[in-house]
Amino acid sequence: MENLYAERIKNVPRSFIREILKISLDPSVISFAGGLPNADYFPVRHIQAATEKVFTDYGSEVLQYSNSEGDLQLREWIAARYKEQKNLIVSPDNIIITNGSQQGIDLLGKVLLNDGDGVLIEEPGYLGAIQSLSLFRPVFIPAPLNDDGLDIEILAEKSGNCTAKMLYSVPTFQNPSGVTYSDENKEQVSAIAEKNSFVIVEDDPYWELRFSGKPSRSFAHFLPQQTAMLGSFSKIVAPGFRLGWIAAPEALSEKLLIAKQAADLHTSSLSQKIMYEYLVGGDLDTHIKAITDAYGGQCRAMQDAIQNSFPKSIQFTRPEGGMFLWGKLPEGMDSMALFDEAVKEKVVFVLGILSIQNRGQQTRFG
Amino acid sequence: MENLYAERIKNVPRSFIREILKISLDPSVISFAGGLPNADYFPVRHIQAATEKVFTDYGSEVLQYSNSEGDLQLREWIAARYKEQKNLIVSPDNIIITNGSQQGIDLLGKVLLNDGDGVLIEEPGYLGAIQSLSLFRPVFIPAPLNDDGLDIEILAEKSGNCTAKMLYSVPTFQNPSGVTYSDENKEQVSAIAEKNSFVIVEDDPYWELRFSGKPSRSFAHFLPQQTAMLGSFSKIVAPGFRLGWIAAPEALSEKLLIAKQAADLHTSSLSQKIMYEYLVGGDLDTHIKAITDAYGGQCRAMQDAIQNSFPKSIQFTRPEGGMFLWGKLPEGMDSMALFDEAVKEKVVFVLGILSIQNRGQQTRFG
Repeated sequence: MENLYAERIKNVPRSFIREILKISLDPSVISFAGGLPNADYFPVRHIQAATEKVFTDYGSEVLQYSNSEGDLQLREWIAARYKEQKNLIVSPDNIIITNGSQQGIDLLGKVLLNDGDGVLIEEPGYLGAIQSLSLFRPVFIPAPLNDDGLDIEILAEKSGNCTAKMLYSVPTFQNPSGVTYSDENKEQVSAIAEKNSFVIVEDDPYWELRFSGKPSRSFAHFLPQQTAMLGSFSKIVAPGFRLGWIAAPEALSEKLLIAKQAADLHTSSLSQKIMYEYLVGGDLDTHIKAITDAYGGQCRAMQDAIQNSFPKSIQFTRPEGGMFLWGKLPEGMDSMALFDEAVKEKVVFVLGILSIQNRGQQTRFG
Repeated sequence: MENLYAERIKNVPRSFIREILKISLDPSVISFAGGLPNADYFPVRHIQAATEKVFTDYGSEVLQYSNSEGDLQLREWIAARYKEQKNLIVSPDNIIITNGSQQGIDLLGKVLLNDGDGVLIEEPGYLGAIQSLSLFRPVFIPAPLNDDGLDIEILAEKSGNCTAKMLYSVPTFQNPSGVTYSDENKEQVSAIAEKNSFVIVEDDPYWELRFSGKPSRSFAHFLPQQTAMLGSFSKIVAPGFRLGWIAAPEALSEKLLIAKQAADLHTSSLSQKIMYEYLVGGDLDTHIKAITDAYGGQCRAMQDAIQNSFPKSIQFTRPEGGMFLWGKLPEGMDSMALFDEAVKEKVVFVLGILSIQNRGQQTRFG
């Protein structure tokens, strides 16, 4: 059997996040790893009401095969939300409903990446994206994150010296750092993307979860013709639906649609309709306000605890929203050793060392 | 943008099935194309009851992130069904829940196929599988279907002359021919697969929809260590859930799980739990009996109509179950010309010419 596997899968390890999640299942473990929304806040009652409405109003229709783009009403809702929240004009025709934004990452890899193509990625970067894109055997090119976004000099230099096909970014309350790109940084990154011809993947599931500061713009404001936006209902409603979307320029959308159809024909029509009915049912904005307040409170509590209990030599980000906060150990200190100590005390967190160079080596040179 | 696309997507056309489906949306068109279950038979009331039970019994739990393998209760149900229906011992640990069996095909392509690897496929073959596997840029190697399964001589010769990684087969009430492999044919195919070291993909969504004849065995009875079984709830319950599964040997399962996680983390936990509660709710067997009777009646009506109205020079298969029936035109007659004439009369069907050589050329040499 061993000799039958494709090259792309041979050296991809099981996800470390997955292994951490396994440890976290022990209720006595305190987990700071992974972006698990707090299930206590899920709007179960409203979702249940939306579900009842779906069965009453649509009946067997939502149980039949459907189109690969996804539910038109849901795509129209997403387009209207882009206009309302971000002042972006997006056509529902260029939106594809996906199984969470994770599937959007996979489809982008399928459509853009040949073996050995360059993928620019934040350092530290989102492990789920690295894992997903690894299967297309790219060369990962890490660009460091500063407090206001990507290091522009390093990004310009590195992307000028390679043929990168895409930059994968989580520009708002980034996973795992909590960093938000400034609009100025986005404009500069967009100029580099235009010059060096790569697609900017803007994975933005946390944008609506802002508890301080002012809203940031999208890469699509600066470079719409080269920006693919990934969105998700996982963080603003609930992840169990596995519902997200890609909004991309028309020509790219067309290719993504072929990949989506090949991947699984379409996303569950029942789930899509339940989500749509929930979204128009009137609870969403109240719900987002409630969870944002709660996450803001949790973040402040954590920052206070860090302030009071951690050595001053450890630096932390100060996120204005979302679910992540990142610490930097003093030069030379071993995060893996700290992790092992933490596990003994039944505490887990995500390590920067798991991020890109390491993973890149495993998949390309391992 | 054009120069940024991956090789795998450049020459893959939009699915023809998809285009046919578009024509079929016109209610005045009579469609014999595509395996669309009859929505009138969907067990809506029972599914609604199952959904209510899920919200009552599980609450927010089914809206949270879950494991990539899929719901354990659902996997245990599937394992028990294999034992009960096919007398096969399958461990729930080696079952992965997928977004329809289409995703199973995609994951198998990801895990097994390098550019240019051989894929043995039935002729005529299931277009959805051909489309999905095309993205991994294999060389398709068609093997003709006879009334009792694959042409053994041709399969032995062709698979001996290449390094095929897999055979994709729909051995029961095949899509699109309606042919069922005999147990003897399966045993012979298994021997060839063992000798020439390729995985048998047994895509078997129609097995429970038998309206005459006696149940056939699985490839897993003859060659369990090289058989990957794809299953689906689309035809026995409803396709809108997008719920299927892969049951594969342990080592292959492990690789498929990594691919599944990279593709979309996991399948909707809400959908899975609703399906599980429907399955254990007591309606399933009654429901399958009812739809099988209905499809059997429709098949007989169609065969009678063919008998009475078609020229004798057109040969038809005589399926014992499922949803497909296949006609062979006399040598030299152009099916595309017939299709164009049929569309004028508002009738559509699937063409054999769309099948493999043609598609293989488009993706490999186009």
